[in-house]
Amino acid sequence: MHLGVCYYPEQWPQHQWESDARRMAELGISRVRIGEFAWSRMEPEAGRYEWAWLDRAIEVLATHGLKVILGTPTATPPRWLVDLHPEILPVNKDGITLNFGSRRHYDISSEIYREHCARIVTQMVRRYGTHPAVIAWQTDNELACHDTAPSYTEAARRRFGGWLAARYGEVERLNAAWGNVFWSMEYRSFAEIGLPNRTPTDANPSHWLDFRRFMSSEVASFHGLQGELIREHAPGRDLLHNFMGFFTSFDHYEFAESGLDVAAWDSYPLPRTEVLWFDDADKHRWARTGHPDIPAFNHDLYRGVGKGRMWVMEQQVGPVNWAPYNPVPKAGMARLWTWEAFAHGAELVSYFRWRQAPFAQEQMHSGINAPDDKLTAGGHEIAQVARELASFDPTFDPAATAQVTQARVAMLFDYPADWIVQIQRHGADFDYQRLVFEWYSCLREMGVDVDLLPATADLSGYRLVVAPSLPVVPDALVAQIQAGQAHWLFGPRTGSKTADFTIPATLPPGPLQAVLNVRVSQSESLRPSLRPAATFDGVRGEGRSWRDHVEPGPGVDVTAVFDDGVPAVVQAGRVRMTTACFDPALQRAVLERCVRDAGIEVLTLPEGGRLRRLGNLRFALNYGDTAWRVPAPEGARFVLGGRETGPSDVAAWIEMH
Amino acid sequence: MHLGVCYYPEQWPQHQWESDARRMAELGISRVRIGEFAWSRMEPEAGRYEWAWLDRAIEVLATHGLKVILGTPTATPPRWLVDLHPEILPVNKDGITLNFGSRRHYDISSEIYREHCARIVTQMVRRYGTHPAVIAWQTDNELACHDTAPSYTEAARRRFGGWLAARYGEVERLNAAWGNVFWSMEYRSFAEIGLPNRTPTDANPSHWLDFRRFMSSEVASFHGLQGELIREHAPGRDLLHNFMGFFTSFDHYEFAESGLDVAAWDSYPLPRTEVLWFDDADKHRWARTGHPDIPAFNHDLYRGVGKGRMWVMEQQVGPVNWAPYNPVPKAGMARLWTWEAFAHGAELVSYFRWRQAPFAQEQMHSGINAPDDKLTAGGHEIAQVARELASFDPTFDPAATAQVTQARVAMLFDYPADWIVQIQRHGADFDYQRLVFEWYSCLREMGVDVDLLPATADLSGYRLVVAPSLPVVPDALVAQIQAGQAHWLFGPRTGSKTADFTIPATLPPGPLQAVLNVRVSQSESLRPSLRPAATFDGVRGEGRSWRDHVEPGPGVDVTAVFDDGVPAVVQAGRVRMTTACFDPALQRAVLERCVRDAGIEVLTLPEGGRLRRLGNLRFALNYGDTAWRVPAPEGARFVLGGRETGPSDVAAWIEMH
Amino acid sequence: MHLGVCYYPEQWPQHQWESDARRMAELGISRVRIGEFAWSRMEPEAGRYEWAWLDRAIEVLATHGLKVILGTPTATPPRWLVDLHPEILPVNKDGITLNFGSRRHYDISSEIYREHCARIVTQMVRRYGTHPAVIAWQTDNELACHDTAPSYTEAARRRFGGWLAARYGEVERLNAAWGNVFWSMEYRSFAEIGLPNRTPTDANPSHWLDFRRFMSSEVASFHGLQGELIREHAPGRDLLHNFMGFFTSFDHYEFAESGLDVAAWDSYPLPRTEVLWFDDADKHRWARTGHPDIPAFNHDLYRGVGKGRMWVMEQQVGPVNWAPYNPVPKAGMARLWTWEAFAHGAELVSYFRWRQAPFAQEQMHSGINAPDDKLTAGGHEIAQVARELASFDPTFDPAATAQVTQARVAMLFDYPADWIVQIQRHGADFDYQRLVFEWYSCLREMGVDVDLLPATADLSGYRLVVAPSLPVVPDALVAQIQAGQAHWLFGPRTGSKTADFTIPATLPPGPLQAVLNVRVSQSESLRPSLRPAATFDGVRGEGRSWRDHVEPGPGVDVTAVFDDGVPAVVQAGRVRMTTACFDPALQRAVLERCVRDAGIEVLTLPEGGRLRRLGNLRFALNYGDTAWRVPAPEGARFVLGGRETGPSDVAAWIEMH
Repeated sequence: MHLGVCYYPEQWPQHQWESDARRMAELGISRVRIGEFAWSRMEPEAGRYEWAWLDRAIEVLATHGLKVILGTPTATPPRWLVDLHPEILPVNKDGITLNFGSRRHYDISSEIYREHCARIVTQMVRRYGTHPAVIAWQTDNELACHDTAPSYTEAARRRFGGWLAARYGEVERLNAAWGNVFWSMEYRSFAEIGLPNRTPTDANPSHWLDFRRFMSSEVASFHGLQGELIREHAPGRDLLHNFMGFFTSFDHYEFAESGLDVAAWDSYPLPRTEVLWFDDADKHRWARTGHPDIPAFNHDLYRGVGKGRMWVMEQQVGPVNWAPYNPVPKAGMARLWTWEAFAHGAELVSYFRWRQAPFAQEQMHSGINAPDDKLTAGGHEIAQVARELASFDPTFDPAATAQVTQARVAMLFDYPADWIVQIQRHGADFDYQRLVFEWYSCLREMGVDVDLLPATADLSGYRLVVAPSLPVVPDALVAQIQAGQAHWLFGPRTGSKTADFTIPATLPPGPLQAVLNVRVSQSESLRPSLRPAATFDGVRGEGRSWRDHVEPGPGVDVTAVFDDGVPAVVQAGRVRMTTACFDPALQRAVLERCVRDAGIEVLTLPEGGRLRRLGNLRFALNYGDTAWRVPAPEGARFVLGGRETGPSDVAAWIEMH
Repeated sequence: MHLGVCYYPEQWPQHQWESDARRMAELGISRVRIGEFAWSRMEPEAGRYEWAWLDRAIEVLATHGLKVILGTPTATPPRWLVDLHPEILPVNKDGITLNFGSRRHYDISSEIYREHCARIVTQMVRRYGTHPAVIAWQTDNELACHDTAPSYTEAARRRFGGWLAARYGEVERLNAAWGNVFWSMEYRSFAEIGLPNRTPTDANPSHWLDFRRFMSSEVASFHGLQGELIREHAPGRDLLHNFMGFFTSFDHYEFAESGLDVAAWDSYPLPRTEVLWFDDADKHRWARTGHPDIPAFNHDLYRGVGKGRMWVMEQQVGPVNWAPYNPVPKAGMARLWTWEAFAHGAELVSYFRWRQAPFAQEQMHSGINAPDDKLTAGGHEIAQVARELASFDPTFDPAATAQVTQARVAMLFDYPADWIVQIQRHGADFDYQRLVFEWYSCLREMGVDVDLLPATADLSGYRLVVAPSLPVVPDALVAQIQAGQAHWLFGPRTGSKTADFTIPATLPPGPLQAVLNVRVSQSESLRPSLRPAATFDGVRGEGRSWRDHVEPGPGVDVTAVFDDGVPAVVQAGRVRMTTACFDPALQRAVLERCVRDAGIEVLTLPEGGRLRRLGNLRFALNYGDTAWRVPAPEGARFVLGGRETGPSDVAAWIEMH
Repeated sequence: MHLGVCYYPEQWPQHQWESDARRMAELGISRVRIGEFAWSRMEPEAGRYEWAWLDRAIEVLATHGLKVILGTPTATPPRWLVDLHPEILPVNKDGITLNFGSRRHYDISSEIYREHCARIVTQMVRRYGTHPAVIAWQTDNELACHDTAPSYTEAARRRFGGWLAARYGEVERLNAAWGNVFWSMEYRSFAEIGLPNRTPTDANPSHWLDFRRFMSSEVASFHGLQGELIREHAPGRDLLHNFMGFFTSFDHYEFAESGLDVAAWDSYPLPRTEVLWFDDADKHRWARTGHPDIPAFNHDLYRGVGKGRMWVMEQQVGPVNWAPYNPVPKAGMARLWTWEAFAHGAELVSYFRWRQAPFAQEQMHSGINAPDDKLTAGGHEIAQVARELASFDPTFDPAATAQVTQARVAMLFDYPADWIVQIQRHGADFDYQRLVFEWYSCLREMGVDVDLLPATADLSGYRLVVAPSLPVVPDALVAQIQAGQAHWLFGPRTGSKTADFTIPATLPPGPLQAVLNVRVSQSESLRPSLRPAATFDGVRGEGRSWRDHVEPGPGVDVTAVFDDGVPAVVQAGRVRMTTACFDPALQRAVLERCVRDAGIEVLTLPEGGRLRRLGNLRFALNYGDTAWRVPAPEGARFVLGGRETGPSDVAAWIEMH
């Protein structure tokens, strides 16, 4: 449980570095991320490197016992590089070439740019790879941010052709897989294949899906290229990237395979609440706290991406600058978010940023210190967390928390599922991430901990596995269902596609029919006003947005039916499926049934109340407006707070289980 | 009354063709449309033709007694053709060149592309033009779909200049007609004239109108070029095109003059209801049936375009893929839509498509068969229609229905009116088609049959002619008013423009002043909250969206006045005019008065109930939710259904009139 | 108090000019603006000038005693010029080159175009500069209209680089001022600097602000170039430009420094009400009158721009063509708007236009005469105004009105403030002009007259100065506060930025801290649902949209607090600040307190009632729906109307003060 901070020494006069470092250490911070975005200072002109300032910056930090996470500056190629190679600039979906003047102004598929990235990273790792204070390396920054992946350049087109050739071998196989006989889209060679943008009407969804896969691999290989150099020259150091929550333009699980020790992510609960799919009432309700499940969802997701190792690389401290509306967080939230992260297994919570910059694009983004160097309200809360960490109850076993407990419930998160839905939304309001998040939130409101995992994971340790939607069902997953004893719940659109983006020959749910013998004769998307009603376990609710009309085969029970006769929930032994998106009450009824059947306790928490186990600890976090008497057992020993947990407050007790 | 189907043999293994053809015939289908979109199979490389597969496909169909409608594949130029001539790609209004990868990726003004179209069509008609099974030819597919007309290419600009030179002779005449002295827009030669897109503010509306006229003629000549080749090599075969309902980017009446035997159209009631102007309550009300007047309106419109001969080339059978929301149709609708088409004089109802494709862009578009070859719910309904057709009551005289009865009411539909309104909407919510549709719907709700016709038609047989809006009033129309005995009703904006898109010298309604002596001193568009009230025949209602302030001259009666004193309805003998768009109640009051004055019976039908005469038959079609006791005379002989017509059901009886 | 009209002789047959001029004179018109837009008639081909028609047009007008305002035609370069130099076409923010075919199709930064403008203007002024009938010259037309400034051409980029070099001298100074170390945005030379558009995410706000400043100076120098020629060749004539109300893409005060005798503006109250920020209820309420403060606000603003001399160059007479909805004005409004202008010191009210053109883009824009040459409803009202002017009560001293009375309240209007907010809105609904307008409206509803002035003006004569928001506080303003005795009220975001677009070192309100010792520790934007409540002077109200969290220092009183403890109003002696945008009631409470403290009378006017002093006259203007008993003193002598002022009517009396 470390505290960290994002710091940009190049943005401040050198005489200030010393006091900055001292004050960081005094505050309880032990990790400092620096370096990303500083290319123009590392290499002011082509081939002329200047390291003295960075040498000294690291030295000053190290002197105060601070450990450094060094970022590669490849998110911000300098002007001279753009002028030298204008072809590295990105091209957007409409075919417009973007300009220098902000960040991420590069084409991730540019081989020229990749060479320059390899060059600057090589220089960095040769100089600092074995520096004792430099304990970790971050590549680039928030890859794909600002819609920079997919990229629509000629370089992307060329490499896409190569990727397709490698995937399909012969173009006839591609034509068959994509169904290119449709609309005379047949190709005679891989070189003929263009990008799927700017077509008069929809391009072939198979074309899109392969392009999305290709672009995902481009992001991974862009990171991997730097990762290899870092591994080679900085042995023993952690390799990481700082992901953005809710970004799905590349498959993070695939990315992790390209070389990753820790999945770090950037946590901005307030702006994220403002920009996501929530309705206005929810956006208002959580405007100053953020939705209670936004941080948790990403902690659980990225812990899976990092195979257990997760950091928060940038944690919101106060008001930020990038949402349509940017309120001041409620008092206590910087502390609450920090403990929430630790409760979900974060090894490090690092704040963005040490001091608010009074200039440039992020001048309205607050930090631990105001531009006049006074600690901010959030800064004071961090000082409190540091004190709490320093004086953590000695009866609590820190070693136990180092090992994150595996939850009893796994939820499958599938990046290609999101691509598939984006490519063929079919119903304008169908949102894969929203559906996943709503199921997740439903489980968290019952006090249930959840691990988010890919459909390819080993799920043998779980009592219940839920998949809110899984368009492509891997055969291996069916084998896991058959082999294990877990309960399973699948949502709508499951098994609706093959890996080629076609409809399975036996119709959906395709391979899942081996364990749930139903045939989806037709599917429909529902306008918001169309809400067929159904009852499950006595709870009346509505289907929304999507409905699969299933015909149950032998051995399948229909356990809920819509008023018009279409099955709502079907079941074959341990495997259930819901045929539509449900309203929260009906969704909860089904999930609650599954949780109980799996032998897991169901609690009823107050609005905004959340629980989380970590080792032998259980945390209670109160995002609500009223005090909460937390469900600790009689006589539980509290290591943080007490039984009455006020608004924006947190408690933790040792649980004997 | 034939049933047909759209079929794509190239998309399925050849061994399946035989069973497909057999099952079609068994189902009662007698017509099969094939071939459109298959260019890459007909000519896999430049100049290398492959016809064997198509020979065989036609043969298999013919063996089962099926007749073939052969489509030209020009909606989908193959990749090799695009690579050979990239300049055939279309350019959109923003100046962006579109890509290969879907369909309609061609510039309709490209002379190079027209040559290639002529070439492939020539090859086809030489081979199949006199094949006994091939009874009809369709050119291209849904011309102008996906906003591909107008086209904004350099080729379009060049040809537009030529078109203008032919129209005006001398550029000074064009300058005068367009009023180019305004804003120094004067041209010194036709070659100087560009396209009207991408101007800093509105281009000259006269410039736009001529461009729209030109583009309309481009669409017609593109079809005509193919039509001529078909006429030459396929003597005696029907020449057709499959239009899309509610597409007005070209003048269908002008198109028909370029060579057309049958006006075929593609009927998708559900997605059309979702994307048209209806408010949310109406979209919900008709989400699973489609608005009751959408099919009828187009049947009546295209019957006029085809001078009496009308087919439904593609009829929705089940859920489709292209609206924001795509629900499953209510049980019975595939049958109901079919009978509605026949009731309006369709010679053929052809379904889209034989079997849902599990791949490519339209994989979520259902058909008669699911991808696993099982008949869909809609497929079963079609089987029922086929049985009903086969056993039609022998006392009914089929010959009588072959001749569509001329209605007593004509409604004028004017494509240039829609262009004029689009070019100069003036009020953001003024929609010409919506206004026409609302008047049409109003008449249909009274049980009145309507023929839709151009303003240039011979209208001498009608008792009542209504024109919801007719900005340019032809002199010949005024002559028809004066010569005949019909009643006439004109709506707002009538006579507001000359053919050059200028205001008539005597102000609106221009030439109509000869029969209705009023002067529109000023016109206004009304924000939705501004709704002046008026009363007609005791019915209180509101004006909306637009109002012409008319000053009545001698001989003109003001039969309704808005509360602020502006005339709402004016009348001179048999000619009436409404000065604003009215709400449904007030609109009905005025139309009902006109219908009664014309000696036509007015009925009050239940919500969703519709009637239609065909020869000596009268059909009752129930789009509503409750059973309907249809207004058949005592002792009427029912040839379909009975006096009680349930939801989504249909009845027909022999009417002695 | 002159009446004028906009006239386009080139658009009408010459035989009509004589009667037009005669009827103008008869109507009471004495000024006629002509010439702008007529380039293609002045110079039909490169270098071939045709002046005979214009000679004659001026002659005809002069013969009838009419004085001419001659416009330069540079808003409409002819086709031949565009073909000769296609590089003069503008490029929009997305990088798309715009086309010929409307107006303003030129790049304001094009040096080639500037040469051609100088050439045509030189020709004009040499010919007509000393013509006795030509009393004034207008440059171009509504500069920057249709989003034509900023311009995003290569020429703009080149000149911007030069402008930056002149401003900063050395690129290092620019890098430091902009904070370009952030995101490696550092430049090595001015030539490297591009335009700030089309970046993947926000460009540096300092980059944008300098670009906006540069573009503002481009607009000014474009005018100045013509102005110099006019000054040289047309000595003694008024030099003017016709501005559009609410256009802020250039700094009008800076513009005036480039040479301006009169600030003329174009007044279209109805469409402006429809397109501005008003909610639907207000748009409906004022749909036929225009919001009562729209004309007044601009009169007061442009009177300041013109240093006391203000004209209405184009006054709406009837319905126009360019808003989403274009209703007919309420009877009386053309007259009311005219008197409102005179009451605010307009020397001339000139109507757009003499006769509605039946052709081209503005054919739906009404005028004094309909296209059939009959006087319109608005035309009749103008005739009434002319009669009233002619018979103005002789006891009224016209000389007194020639001198506009300085108001007691000054409001600061700051063009860069609007740029700053646009560049970094931070809260999606924060609108600088809206905030200013709401404060202005609040004052006008109390019967208070207001002068709008720049922050650099000499404010010594005012009792109260209000600045709804002033992000950059000039040091000289602080000196004025300290030196004078006036009361001051500042709104949110005041002092939030330095001139370089950075946060002041001591945090906001920066320099204002010298007179109001507070520190804005953090600022927040508030979604519409977040509305913290506060009470001031017993009035309960809400903060909206924005809130500065201020920490009051010694000597500062907190006179209102939000319920959550954040100060709402702070005060130090004569200086007050509101920390948020307030709802109208709370805003009025604070302004009313300031007005009373400044010793100014506060009235309560009925809805739509407005007062205005001019010399020894006081006008009452009734935009409301009911008669108003105006607050004239007992025995006041009315020179217009009487004590009961009906809807859309006006009264004026001699006030002894």
